[in-house]
Parts: sequence; structure tokens; C-alpha cells
Amino acid sequence: MFGARCLLRALRSCSSVPCPRHKPSTKLSVRDALGAQNVNGERVKVQGWIRSVRSQKEVLFLHVNDGSSLESLQVVADSSFDSRELAFGSSVEVQGQLVKSPSKGQNVELKAEKIEVVGNCDVKAFPLKYKERHPLEYLRQYPHLRCRTNVLGSILRVRSEATAAVHSFFKDSGFVHIHTPVITSNDCEGAGELFQVEPSSKIKVPDENFFSVPAFLTVSGQLHLEVMSGAFTQVFTFGPTFRAENSQTRRHLAEFYMVEAEISFLESLQDLMQVMEGLFKTATRAVLASCQEDVELCHKFIAPGQKDRLEHMLKHNFLVISYTEAVEILKQASENFTFTPEVAAVDLLVPGVGELFGGSLREERYHFLEQRLARYLDLRRFGSVPHGGFGMGFERYLQCILGIDNIKDVIPFPRFTHSCLL
Amino acid sequence: MFGARCLLRALRSCSSVPCPRHKPSTKLSVRDALGAQNVNGERVKVQGWIRSVRSQKEVLFLHVNDGSSLESLQVVADSSFDSRELAFGSSVEVQGQLVKSPSKGQNVELKAEKIEVVGNCDVKAFPLKYKERHPLEYLRQYPHLRCRTNVLGSILRVRSEATAAVHSFFKDSGFVHIHTPVITSNDCEGAGELFQVEPSSKIKVPDENFFSVPAFLTVSGQLHLEVMSGAFTQVFTFGPTFRAENSQTRRHLAEFYMVEAEISFLESLQDLMQVMEGLFKTATRAVLASCQEDVELCHKFIAPGQKDRLEHMLKHNFLVISYTEAVEILKQASENFTFTPEVAAVDLLVPGVGELFGGSLREERYHFLEQRLARYLDLRRFGSVPHGGFGMGFERYLQCILGIDNIKDVIPFPRFTHSCLL
Repeated sequence: MFGARCLLRALRSCSSVPCPRHKPSTKLSVRDALGAQNVNGERVKVQGWIRSVRSQKEVLFLHVNDGSSLESLQVVADSSFDSRELAFGSSVEVQGQLVKSPSKGQNVELKAEKIEVVGNCDVKAFPLKYKERHPLEYLRQYPHLRCRTNVLGSILRVRSEATAAVHSFFKDSGFVHIHTPVITSNDCEGAGELFQVEPSSKIKVPDENFFSVPAFLTVSGQLHLEVMSGAFTQVFTFGPTFRAENSQTRRHLAEFYMVEAEISFLESLQDLMQVMEGLFKTATRAVLASCQEDVELCHKFIAPGQKDRLEHMLKHNFLVISYTEAVEILKQASENFTFTPEVAAVDLLVPGVGELFGGSLREERYHFLEQRLARYLDLRRFGSVPHGGFGMGFERYLQCILGIDNIKDVIPFPRFTHSCLL
Repeated sequence: MFGARCLLRALRSCSSVPCPRHKPSTKLSVRDALGAQNVNGERVKVQGWIRSVRSQKEVLFLHVNDGSSLESLQVVADSSFDSRELAFGSSVEVQGQLVKSPSKGQNVELKAEKIEVVGNCDVKAFPLKYKERHPLEYLRQYPHLRCRTNVLGSILRVRSEATAAVHSFFKDSGFVHIHTPVITSNDCEGAGELFQVEPSSKIKVPDENFFSVPAFLTVSGQLHLEVMSGAFTQVFTFGPTFRAENSQTRRHLAEFYMVEAEISFLESLQDLMQVMEGLFKTATRAVLASCQEDVELCHKFIAPGQKDRLEHMLKHNFLVISYTEAVEILKQASENFTFTPEVAAVDLLVPGVGELFGGSLREERYHFLEQRLARYLDLRRFGSVPHGGFGMGFERYLQCILGIDNIKDVIPFPRFTHSCLL
């Protein structure tokens, strides 16, 4: 936990003399150990899983990873520590001295004084193999183990940082965060692709709805955000949304995450686009700064060329084209499509992923909405304001910055037709 | 949006001479306007809803609120601006000069040069009445409008800040955030109080599950976090959980939020309790610092005495008592209960709310788990580690810091038996 601070304290108290033997070791994450400056034999304890073992005549090298970073910590031990139990995948606790590493590729290494195997790994049965780079499709079969590979580790650390970056962007811009409900009695998009929710058959009373009305899993928080933008002016939500779509493509999930924002007193699409572009660029820069190695791994091994595309997006203003211009471009492309004209709406398209954001100015005029629910009408009766908003598919965002082809690889536990593993 | 920065720029460019008339007004949130330092007639634009109107012989006072803070901005206009449309609840855009306020109670006020009514409010039909403090029960009937009252505004701003504070605490402590799934094929607690999920009846194929197996809404992310703690060591989730409990008490919701954490290589309950206490205190201090007025409103009008209790909790170490001691205390209380002995588990109880956190060390020994699913067994086969974790009910946390009695008042859109409004 409080690794960095503990180390500072340890370093301060040790200064230039090595710690005396009886001093208890400071527990450090691999990330904090790797980032330690001016190490001088401080006694530390590191815990994690063995990623590689290399046994030489007199020295044993282990790489230990605890998921705090892509990079592992090199542990150097004398060969007396060698044992069959120190195998790929085993969990260990290593105590020793943190010293400058003589070898290239790392600043520090851990000179082991004590190595304890916490949990053995049945290497033969373990679906992850030493030194092998497993294809993402293969890893999808093991939703409980794939997070222990370099690539899924990197993707999920990036997902975690991107989540924090989205929250920070909105907080810094004065938005109020709203937990829009997952269960709703609205049918936002009018489509049939909804999941319905009822108590499990064991306890359900026949012919009676738990909520007195049919209830569904949300497909969008927009209407709830519209309610809240009428009080807080600028609001956002970041939560799961659902589609009961019977498709098994690389682009579809039954459960996925959306970042949605709604802004009152919004006067133009330009203002909306500025927020969309700001969100994309601010969040992406934050991720690139905090997860450089993780992003590089994806760009290097999975999506060559994505790095340049991403840098290009960050450097330049997003290209804005009008509906008419878009139609012109589409006409010149020799494909067939059905046009559906839209008014005051905006989509943000990115290479490889397609539509990343969709946004629009909303209809604030009372009489245009008379067919809608009384409660939504109310929102236009009591101090109505022009407003607009957008939604960004969070998985698509991750696919875009990392260049990951299949949406199932950027979410911890993918759900889709015929698949609800774990 | 980028209010504070814009104002700084405006202030810098204006310095001591008032801005020339033709300069476009800087758009400011009420919060930023109220927080402006050394104002000197800067031309600004503020948008929001009228919270009060006071018409004097030659002067008109309006209070305009945009939800960015509890406090409203006082707008001073000459009586020529007076109109019926400037009513409680109407939305307005005011342009004018930001000046020092001569009256007590505020630093600045806005000298109006232009007031535009953006949307009228049908005051007679509006369920919120001017100057009235509506009971929370009354407000629950209007899930789409209650956010426009002082008290719900404060609660939801606190909720938003607390959400950010929870994310910050874990990020600063080195935890990886995981989106644990909402739809799951596990039945974590073995109970029957689950919601089942199927495509809505319109599109459902009879006798066929969408996911090939029965699927439910999650009651806890614990098992998914256990998976992830086997890769990232320290993980947390913060998302919706569900219970199909047929109860309509002030303590139950069908959909509520949980903060859950899981930590590998955890050796004692003490380490776990340290994280629980750290989360509670760090998040609460952050909320108190950023939402002082909002918290005070609740403490003043809703929960007198809560302020002292909260300060007491923050100042002192949480009291830890053993199971045996707890049993002794319970025995001395002359009530009837059924004891269920627990091993290496911890609950955090707080006054008024009861159980706020529940935590335990998990069973990491393979043979104890042989009855469980093969995938969870795998977690113990390939480098198993001692680990533990906890869950904190987020609504209960908000109830605890604000002293709100009914859980339905600390969540934007409450869902419970027979009620799924909006």
C-alpha cells in the first residue's frame, strides 16, 4: 500500500549506512521498488508472482511481478535458493536489499536474503506458458487468468487510469457526477433490444412485476442526465449500459460502459464539440503520461502504426465537416447506403473504431415533446433551457487509443450472446 | 465550463480599468463568480434558475442558482427590468458587471445590464414552492424536480465529491480500478434474492437463455475482484449491486452502490482494517473540504448532532473489539438474537447506520474450495496467496456523513419494490 511514503521514510532513516539486520523490512510494490532513487541496500519485502526463472551456476535470477507495473523486479539470489517450487506462476515473498543493478535494462534489483514460496503453481496445468505470447483469442477462454499476462495487464491498467482520467476531466471542468440508474422503466431508444429484469424464478410472484411496471436494463443515461442538468447545469455519468443484441462480432458487447454528459444553456454544436474534443485529448494525455510502458506494449506488439495516428489526433484540431459535406464524401465513395438526415447532431469518428462519440442539441421546446412522459414534459415547463450532450463508448475509446481490434479484450469480463463466463 | 481560467484571463486583461462595453462577456458559473477575488466591474454572463425575487421601489434583487454551489448569486437590477416572467423557477441569462457587494452575506454581486428569460416557469403548477422547506418524503414524489431544492442539491453534490474522493483514495494507494460485471452467471450469496436478466419478452426465444445459462444482476463484485487481485495485488470496484428484496424500509434499495476492495498477500485483519479506516477518513475529509456548505446544510437542518459525531470519528482511532468482546456486549444487552460465529471477519459499525463495511480474510486453501467452480479453484492452483477484502455500502456511507435517515434520499433515482420512477 503506502509504498512510496514508507520507502521515503526508510530511505531517510537509513541515509548512507545500510540498515541493521534486525530492522523489519519495508513492504514495497514492484512499481515503487523500480522507481526508488539512490538505493543503497535498504531492506525491503516484495511480494508477487514469478514471471521468469533463470538459473546460472552460482546465481539465480527471478523476475517478480505484482501487477503494479508492466515491468518486473529482478531478484538476484545465490544458487542455494534454487528449488523446483520457484516456478513460473508461483507466488513468492522476497526479502532482501534493494541495490543498484549492474546490468542494463533496470535501475535496481533485489538481492535476496529470504525467499518464501507463498503458493505453488501447477505449471503443467497452467494455461499460460512461460515465454509464450498467447494470442488474445486464446486468452479469452481464461477470463480468470488472462489478467496475469503482460498484454491484459497493460490493457486493464490503462482502463483503470483512463477511468480516473475521465472523472478528473469532468471534475476539473465543473461537472457534477450522477449515478444514473441501471434499472429503468423507460424504453429510451424504443427498440426491442432490451434486457428485462425480474426477480429470479424461484421467488417471482407470477403476473406481478417487482417494480409494479416492466423494468429494463438501461441503454443510456441521457434522460436521467437531462433531469439533472436542469439543476446542476453540467452533469456526467460513467456507467454500464446494455443491449440484448444477438450478435457475436468483434464490435458488440451485451454489457459495456458509456461516458455521457449533458450541458444546460448550450447554444451551439461548437460548444459541445469543444467538450468532446477536450475529454478525448485530456484523458488520453493523462493515460499516456501515467501508463507509457503499457500503451507502448500495445502499440508495439498489437497495433503498429497506432502510435502515429494517436499522436496526430492529439496534435491537430479535430476535423469538423457539415452534414452536407459528409453526404458529398459518401456519395463519392461508391457504396450503397440509406441516408437518415439528422438535425443539430454530431458524431466523432475515429480511424479503426468508427463512431466514438454521438452528441446532439436536445429538443427543449414544450410542444415538440407533448407525446412524451409527463415527467419529461415537466422538465420543459419549469424553467426550460437549451441543452445538449453526448455519449462516448468507453470500450471504443480504449480500442482507439490502444489499437485493440476486439472489444472483448478491453473489458475485464465480456458479456455477449451465449457467453457470460464467471 | 472553463470558468475559473476564463475569469483569470478576464481579470488580467481588465486589471484596474473597467472593460470596454464592446468586449464579449465571460461566461461564469455561479460558483466561480462567487469565488472571484478583487472584482472590479468585469463584464460577465451568468446562467441559471431564479431562486428568489425581491422587488423594491427602485431596485430588483434576484438570486440565481446554477447548481454549481449551494449559494446563489445575487443579481441587482434597476426596477425597469421587473417583469412577471422573472419568477421563481424560471431560467435566465444575466449579463452585467461583477462588483463588490455592499451587503453582508456575499462578497460579490452582479449588476445586471441585460436579463433574458430563457425558459418560463409555470409557478402555480410547479410542485416546489417559493421559500418553503419541503419534507424529504414530499420531494420523493418528484424524482425529476427534487434536485432543484437546496437539500437534494447539496446531497447530490456531496455524492459526486465522495465518488471522486473514493477513486482518489484508491488510486493514491496504488489500487487498480476494475469494472466488475453487472450481469453474472454466479449466484454469489446463494440466496434467492436475485434479479434475473433476459431479453425483453418481445424478442426472447422461449426456452433459450440469451447467455446460454441463467444470468443475474450482481450482488457483489467480490469473486471478480478475487480474480483480479491475483494479478494486480490491490484492486477495487465501485459500481451498482442489486437485491430483489421485497422490503420497503428506509434501509433498503433494490439497486445500490458498493465500494469493494480486494488485497493479495494480506496477512492480518489489522491490515484490512487500516485500509477501511483510511478510506473512510480520507474520503470524508476530502468531502468536508470541498463541500463544506453542503455538508453544513444537512447537519444544520436534517441531522443536528451529526457534525460532532463525525468529527469524533475522524479524530479518534476506530474502536476495535474482538468477536468475544462483541458477544459479551451483546449478552449484556437484554435482547434476543441468533449468534452466527464468524472467523477472521470484520464489520465496521457506525452510529445511526449500522454496518457500513463488511470485510474478511478469504479462504485461499485449495481443498477448502473444492466444491466451488473450477475457475475459482484455478485461482488457488496457480500461485495462490492469502488475501482479503471488504465492501462498503456507498449510500450508507453518505447517510453516515450527512445524517440522512432514509436511503432513498442519497441516491439520484431510488429503485425499490413497486417503485421504478423514471
